[in-house]
Amino acid sequence: MAGKYIVGLDMGGTNVRCAAVSPAGKVLLLLRGPARAKSAASAVAENIVTQVRALQDAARRRGLGAPRAIGVAVPGPLNVFTGTVMAAPHVAAWRAFPLRQHLETALGRRVVVDNDANAWALGEFWRGAARGHRNVVLLTLGTGVGGGLIVDGKLVHGRSGMAAELGHVVVEPEGIPCDCGARGCLESYASASGIERMLARRLGPRRKFPAHYLDAEGNFSVRGLTRAARSGDRIALKIFTDSGRYLGIALASFINIFNPDLIVIGGGVAGALPFMRRTMMAEVSSRAFAVMARETRIVRAALGPIGGVVGAAYAALHPARR
Amino acid sequence: MAGKYIVGLDMGGTNVRCAAVSPAGKVLLLLRGPARAKSAASAVAENIVTQVRALQDAARRRGLGAPRAIGVAVPGPLNVFTGTVMAAPHVAAWRAFPLRQHLETALGRRVVVDNDANAWALGEFWRGAARGHRNVVLLTLGTGVGGGLIVDGKLVHGRSGMAAELGHVVVEPEGIPCDCGARGCLESYASASGIERMLARRLGPRRKFPAHYLDAEGNFSVRGLTRAARSGDRIALKIFTDSGRYLGIALASFINIFNPDLIVIGGGVAGALPFMRRTMMAEVSSRAFAVMARETRIVRAALGPIGGVVGAAYAALHPARR
Repeated sequence: MAGKYIVGLDMGGTNVRCAAVSPAGKVLLLLRGPARAKSAASAVAENIVTQVRALQDAARRRGLGAPRAIGVAVPGPLNVFTGTVMAAPHVAAWRAFPLRQHLETALGRRVVVDNDANAWALGEFWRGAARGHRNVVLLTLGTGVGGGLIVDGKLVHGRSGMAAELGHVVVEPEGIPCDCGARGCLESYASASGIERMLARRLGPRRKFPAHYLDAEGNFSVRGLTRAARSGDRIALKIFTDSGRYLGIALASFINIFNPDLIVIGGGVAGALPFMRRTMMAEVSSRAFAVMARETRIVRAALGPIGGVVGAAYAALHPARR
Repeated sequence: MAGKYIVGLDMGGTNVRCAAVSPAGKVLLLLRGPARAKSAASAVAENIVTQVRALQDAARRRGLGAPRAIGVAVPGPLNVFTGTVMAAPHVAAWRAFPLRQHLETALGRRVVVDNDANAWALGEFWRGAARGHRNVVLLTLGTGVGGGLIVDGKLVHGRSGMAAELGHVVVEPEGIPCDCGARGCLESYASASGIERMLARRLGPRRKFPAHYLDAEGNFSVRGLTRAARSGDRIALKIFTDSGRYLGIALASFINIFNPDLIVIGGGVAGALPFMRRTMMAEVSSRAFAVMARETRIVRAALGPIGGVVGAAYAALHPARR
């Protein structure tokens, strides 16, 4: 196996991060570029190719030679065995899109693809909060809620690699509509978009969001709402209390299902965990089997924005086999 | 490895089944005895020892020699790595009871213990409905709801072997109280005890159960209620409709979590599946990701009462390792 580094690329709705990762999981070099997620299907893939090439050039200039392997993480669900993206929420043009084939043809070599939350879970497992743990549930509370599952030291892929859509477990059967088309999914309560919807319901149809809930562009921002909660804003506190309750319901189910060592929570909404923790833990203690709950630590993700690139590199070294 | 057979023992709340199972998973000899589940902790274990010895004697008389391995399935949750039963719902005296140690001391050899639903899942995987499938969710709808999970061809044990308590995923946060102390678990809606409670709620506190819902001893019987549904009884049909709805909500979550090939449903309540299927499938189709739902077959368990003994024998041949 030649090559002193592995390419780990993580594509989000807005940005692409692309890193040269050492065989020990250290980020040697990190580039950032636009995701161009609204372009045509093949243009989005071509943009990934461009950024991998830019990284390879930069790495060569640093004397790192050619990469040992290439791992690419994208928003799922995707079939990791065929490398086909089924329907990515943030890339409208990718519908049954053969991403891996595209990338391999353009780059002239093998590429491993996996979904972004799976990659993050692998990153935390390799180099982050979950190091040394063999049974891990990872939740990313971002625009949506993503999930990654590690059972007995291996990522759970399921039949076709679409497993771990943990944002779409049901926590309230007749609850708030979810972007997936169902109702009352965890994502409806514990993601930025879900929290925005909870807030809109609470304020009623005619009231506008107060300015301190918004970001500089005038869009709703969980960070703004978290700041408001910190200064005692009652509505913000109530929203996070409700959100924590539903997160706790889901965590209790995950504990009873997986008997995990660790639950790792990341993403922008995780910044509000201090305001969610009380109701979250109340649900966990009243619903999870005590013998399992006391074995499960619930912690924040440690890697932040580099979790995905590190995990994509790990996936490249340990490709899923059917 | 000497021995022409494996001992597989399955202890329920009432009976113990103990079998000589061939290395290919065929039941060569099957004995049944009482569970004595209400006795003192060590007496319940001694009863298991007695039945294993009786089987060994019978097997020797048939020229099968000594067993190759011994597997024992009991109601969980238990720690499969230490062999300690934490708290078995049907064996009040077993609280942090070192079952494996007891059995190994008495039998003078290694014994593998696992929980009964896990054993059933292994049985269906080895010789039943799940043969040839690598990602399987098994649900046993009996007095309670048990679960077994097979991911990539291996049983999911979790940190200490208590995983797969699938009856205790939350399907209705403010729902019917569950025997586990929580509310609105799947078990509250899809087990015999849950269905009895749903029925009691529906009939109101003062109305007695109609005679055709009861068994010969005057106890509520899901079989009686199923017969009533078959002859068009409206209350029975409504109960199973509601039960199917909650079962479907849980199945949708399991599909989104595991992307399984197969969901296998067994146990006495499964006899009512024809009356639950419509609402169950409506929830599955509206809540599970279509790309995954169309890959998942939902089938009845094939092995019936011998699932547990066959699976206990499989567990004995493939002990869990930490």
